[in-house]
Amino acid sequence: MSWYAFYQRASRASHDYPSITKLAVLFTVSGGGLLAFSDARPFRGAYADAIQSDQKKKKVVVLGTGWAGTSFLKNLKDPSYEVQVVSPRNYFAFTPLLPSVTCGTVEARSIVEPVRNIVKKKGLDVQFREAECLKIDAVNKKVYCRSNPDNNLGGEENFTVDYDYLVIAMGARSNTFNTPGVVENCHFLKEVEDAQKIRRSVIDCFEKATLPSISEEERKRILHFVVVGGGPTGVEFAAELHDFVTEDLAKLYPCAKDDVKITLLEAADHILNMFDKRITAFAEEKFQRDGIDLKTGSMVVKVTDSEISTKERATGENRSIPYGMVVWSTGIGTRPVVMDFMKQIGQGNRRALATDEWLRVEGCDNIYALGDCATINQRKVMEDIMAIFSKADKNQSGTLTVADFKDVIKDICERYPQVEIYLKRKQLKNFVDLLKNYQGNAQKEIIDIELFKAALSEVDAQMKNLPATAQVAAQQGAYLANCFNRMERCETYPEGPLRFRGSGRHRFHPFRYKHFGQFAPLGGEQTAAQLPGDWVSIGHSTQWLWYSVYASKLVSWRTRMLVISDWGRRFIFGRDSSRI
Amino acid sequence: MSWYAFYQRASRASHDYPSITKLAVLFTVSGGGLLAFSDARPFRGAYADAIQSDQKKKKVVVLGTGWAGTSFLKNLKDPSYEVQVVSPRNYFAFTPLLPSVTCGTVEARSIVEPVRNIVKKKGLDVQFREAECLKIDAVNKKVYCRSNPDNNLGGEENFTVDYDYLVIAMGARSNTFNTPGVVENCHFLKEVEDAQKIRRSVIDCFEKATLPSISEEERKRILHFVVVGGGPTGVEFAAELHDFVTEDLAKLYPCAKDDVKITLLEAADHILNMFDKRITAFAEEKFQRDGIDLKTGSMVVKVTDSEISTKERATGENRSIPYGMVVWSTGIGTRPVVMDFMKQIGQGNRRALATDEWLRVEGCDNIYALGDCATINQRKVMEDIMAIFSKADKNQSGTLTVADFKDVIKDICERYPQVEIYLKRKQLKNFVDLLKNYQGNAQKEIIDIELFKAALSEVDAQMKNLPATAQVAAQQGAYLANCFNRMERCETYPEGPLRFRGSGRHRFHPFRYKHFGQFAPLGGEQTAAQLPGDWVSIGHSTQWLWYSVYASKLVSWRTRMLVISDWGRRFIFGRDSSRI
Repeated sequence: MSWYAFYQRASRASHDYPSITKLAVLFTVSGGGLLAFSDARPFRGAYADAIQSDQKKKKVVVLGTGWAGTSFLKNLKDPSYEVQVVSPRNYFAFTPLLPSVTCGTVEARSIVEPVRNIVKKKGLDVQFREAECLKIDAVNKKVYCRSNPDNNLGGEENFTVDYDYLVIAMGARSNTFNTPGVVENCHFLKEVEDAQKIRRSVIDCFEKATLPSISEEERKRILHFVVVGGGPTGVEFAAELHDFVTEDLAKLYPCAKDDVKITLLEAADHILNMFDKRITAFAEEKFQRDGIDLKTGSMVVKVTDSEISTKERATGENRSIPYGMVVWSTGIGTRPVVMDFMKQIGQGNRRALATDEWLRVEGCDNIYALGDCATINQRKVMEDIMAIFSKADKNQSGTLTVADFKDVIKDICERYPQVEIYLKRKQLKNFVDLLKNYQGNAQKEIIDIELFKAALSEVDAQMKNLPATAQVAAQQGAYLANCFNRMERCETYPEGPLRFRGSGRHRFHPFRYKHFGQFAPLGGEQTAAQLPGDWVSIGHSTQWLWYSVYASKLVSWRTRMLVISDWGRRFIFGRDSSRI
Repeated sequence: MSWYAFYQRASRASHDYPSITKLAVLFTVSGGGLLAFSDARPFRGAYADAIQSDQKKKKVVVLGTGWAGTSFLKNLKDPSYEVQVVSPRNYFAFTPLLPSVTCGTVEARSIVEPVRNIVKKKGLDVQFREAECLKIDAVNKKVYCRSNPDNNLGGEENFTVDYDYLVIAMGARSNTFNTPGVVENCHFLKEVEDAQKIRRSVIDCFEKATLPSISEEERKRILHFVVVGGGPTGVEFAAELHDFVTEDLAKLYPCAKDDVKITLLEAADHILNMFDKRITAFAEEKFQRDGIDLKTGSMVVKVTDSEISTKERATGENRSIPYGMVVWSTGIGTRPVVMDFMKQIGQGNRRALATDEWLRVEGCDNIYALGDCATINQRKVMEDIMAIFSKADKNQSGTLTVADFKDVIKDICERYPQVEIYLKRKQLKNFVDLLKNYQGNAQKEIIDIELFKAALSEVDAQMKNLPATAQVAAQQGAYLANCFNRMERCETYPEGPLRFRGSGRHRFHPFRYKHFGQFAPLGGEQTAAQLPGDWVSIGHSTQWLWYSVYASKLVSWRTRMLVISDWGRRFIFGRDSSRI
C-alpha cells in the first residue's frame, strides 16, 4: 500500500513541479536527505554563444561540498562562470547512510564520491581547493582560506580567492549547548571520520571489556553505550548498534554480550518528535522490546570521562550514569566562521544566515547561502499589506473589487506562500473565497484596506522555517544552480512574481521546498516512513522501500554498486569487527 | 606455459610432501606470502578422550596474529589446550595485498579477518586479548601485557598471562638502519594503518599541489614521490602508485599530472635482488619506460621534512632531493620487546630469536618462536661429526662400511638438510655416492673418521637462512600447530630422526620449508613470478596467475569475495580519490 501511495504522490508532485522533477524521473524520499541527481548531460550547446572569449568570466566561489554545495555544482550548466570550490573535504558524502557506517553495515568509502569526479563530466570551468574557509570579506569580495590542517604534509598554506558571486554552503556543526565535557568525551555523527571513529570505539569497548584484568562492574560500565538525542540520527544509530551487537558481536564476544546495555537519552517527552505519533509510539515500543533503555525527559548536564550526568525534567532529580561510550546527536549549531560573518553583516543575534526567498543573504550583494548554515526569512504579508493593496488597486481608488484581485492573486500567492498554506488549512478554494468568508453574510463587492488587513491578519502565523535536512539543502542547491544557469535570460525576461514594493517583476521564482517524506530506520530490518499528507508506513516492507530509495539516490553508479554490495555482504557474512 | 609448469610442480610437491599438502589441495604460491589454510573441519572426535575434566589444561599463549600466529591458530586442533592470544590487532591481515591498499586497488577492510572469527569455528578454548606484549618473563613463565594504547578509551590496562607453552610470533618492525629523520618523516608499509595513511598522503600531496598559492617549484617538490628500497614491496608500491597516477589521478588533477615524479632509490646495484636476473632486467626496463626514476647504488643518509639526502656508492657524491612523500621499505628489524627478551636469554648480539629446527627458542623451555621475529639455527654437520660417526659405527670399530650407513642415512639427511642440498648441487644420487666420489678411484669399502670428515667438510656451506616472508611464517605456524596436535602421541611414539648426540629419536620431524615461488607485481597488469627450479614467468598472463593464486589464498570467503569485487570495481570505475 505504501508503495502505491508513494507512487501516486510522486507522480502528482512531478506533475505540479515539472521544473524540479524533470531532473530525474526518480522520485526521491530520504530520511533526512534528498538529492535529485540526474545523470548530467553535457549542456554546452545551449550556452555556447554565452561564452565570449573576450568577455571576462564571472567568478563563482562555492564554500562547502555537502548536500547544498554539491547539488549546486551538479546542476550548474552554464559554462560562462569560472567556479572555485573551497572545502576541507574533497568528496561528497551521502550522509543519510552515516549511521550505517558506524557499525559497518555500509563501508565509509561506499558513500563518498570525489567532488572532482562529480564536476569533471560537465565541461565546466571548476577548480577544487581542499581548504578551510577562514573568513569571508564581503566588502572586498574575498574569501580567506587555509589548506586542510589535517593533512599529513607539514605546513599550512594560506591563500585568498576573489569572487563575483559567493555561494555559502558550509553546513553546520554539532550543537553541544555548551554542556561541559561534551566536546572532550563524546562522539559526534556529522562527518565520515566521526562514523569511522565510532566504529573503532565500539570494537575498542568490546576488546577492553574482555581483558582479564577488568572487573565485573568495570566491564558493565565499558559496555554501556549512551546515545544522547532522540532525533532520526540518534535513533538510527541506537538501532544499528543494537543490531550490530545482537547479530554479530554476540557471537564473537560471548562472555561480553550479557553485559551490553544501550541507553537513549532524550530531553523531550518522546523520541522522533518531528514524526507522526504513530511512528514515535512504534519506535518506543520496539526499543523497549529490544532492550534499549529509553530515558525521555532526561537532560544531560555534564559529561566526564566515565560518567554522564542528567537532570530528570519531571522530578528535578540529578543522576550520574557510568558509561563506556557516548554518541552526541542533539542537533546543529553555527560554525564559527559563519558566526563571524554574521556578526560582520549585522546578523550576530541569529542562529543561521538569514536569506530572502531567493537564497540571497540579507544585507549583502551577490552572496547566497543555502543548506544547514542558512535559513529563509520569509517576508510577512502584514509588513507589505499597504504595498500589496495599492498594487492591486490600479486606479488608486482606495478600494478593491474582486476583478481587481484577479490580476495579482497569482503573484501574491507566489510571493507569500503562507497565503496558500492558510487557504488549504481553512479549506478555502481561493483568495476571493477568503475575503468573502471574512465578510460573512455581507457579501460586499468592494473591499477596503481595513477589511483586507483583517482578512490576512492570521496568514503569517502559517510561516514555518524549513528543517535542516539534506532534502532541503539539495533542493536549494538545484534551485540556485537553475537561477545561475538562466541569470542573463531572466535579467531580460523576468519570470518571478510582481515586486509589490517596487516596479516590475522579480527575476526568478522564489525558492519553494517540496517535501517528499522522511525515513526513520528502526533496526531489525524495520523502517518507518512518513510521506507527505500524513501517510505513515512502518515495517519490513518499508525497509525495502528505504533500500530502493537510498540506492537510487546515491550520487554515482560506483557508490550505488558499492552500497548494494555492502548490503549483500552484510546479509551473507555479517559485519566486520576488525579494528581498522 | 607457466600455468602448466606451475601445475606440474605443484603436483610433484604434493606428492613429495603429503604432510604439508594434505592441509589443502590448494597449491600455494605467493609474492612473499603463503598460507595453506584449509577450511578447518572440527577435530573434536579424535581428541575427545584427551580431555579429562579433572586434568588441568595446558596453557598456550600465542603472541601475535600475523601470518605465523594465525596459521598456528588455524591449524591447532587439539582441544586439550587453553589458548590465549595476545596481539595489538584483533585481526589477521593478508599482507601481500598491502601495496594494493596504498592506492585503493583493494580496500583495507577486504584483506582483514577478525582473529575471533578465524578461531571461533574450531571448538577450541581460545581467548583473544587485544593488547601489546611488554615483557616476557621466561623464569616465572609469565607475559606482561598492556591494553592497546591506540584505542579511544582513556586509561591503560596492565595484566599478566601465565603460560605452559609460549609461541612468539610477533613479527618485526621496519628497519631504518638508524638513518636520521626516517622515523619522523617517512611512511612505512608494514601495517594496514600504514597503507591507509599512505593513501591519504598521496591524495594530500595532489590536493596541496593544486592550491593556488603553490609555486611551480613547490608543486614539483610536493608531487615528487620517493620510494626507498627496491625489494618486492617497494617495487610493487612504486608500480601501484604509477598506475594510480596515470590511470586515475591524471584525469582528476589535469594541471598536476605533468609535475608528478616517482623515484625509486636502491642501495644495491639492482632492484629485486632476490629474484632471477631476467625478472630484475624486465622490471628495470619497464620502470624506465614508465618514467619511474630508478636510482641504484644510492644510499639514503638523512631525511628532513622536505629533502632526502643520498650518497652515491659509485662516486661518493652526496645529493639532496626535494620530495613530497617518502615510503621507506628497506627490510625488517627486531622489535624492542623481542630484543629485550633476547638479552634476557643471552642472545643479545643476534638479529632475531634463534631457534632449533623444531622452532624451540635456544636456551628456553617450552618457548617457540616463528615468523619474522625468529631464525632457525640449523645445526652444523661438522659440529656433530664425531657423534654421527659413532652412531653409525654400531660395533664401535672405528670404521664404517657402506652397510653401516644404510641405517642412519635417512636420519642424517633429515637432521641435516644441508647434506641433501649439497648432494643435489653436486648432482650425486645419494650419500654413499658422495663418499665414493670423495674417495676418487680408490673405492674403499671401509670409511674412517678422517675420510668421513673430509667428505662432509663442504656440506655446511649450503646452509641458508630462510627469507622473512609470509610463506615461511605460515608454514612454520602450520608445522608447529601440527606438533602441538600430536604432542602426546609423539611423546610415546617419536617420529623424528635419530638423536645423534643422545639416545632415542626426536619427537617430531624437524621443520622443513617448501618454497612455492614468489611474485613481483610490476604494474600495468604485468607481474613477474619466480617458481621453484628457476622457472620464470613474466607478463599479463602471470598477472592473472597472481589474481587467482591470491584470491584462493585469502583467509575467508568474505575477504575473497571482497577482494575480487574490489578488483572488479577498479576495472569498471577506477580507484577512489576521496580523502578518507
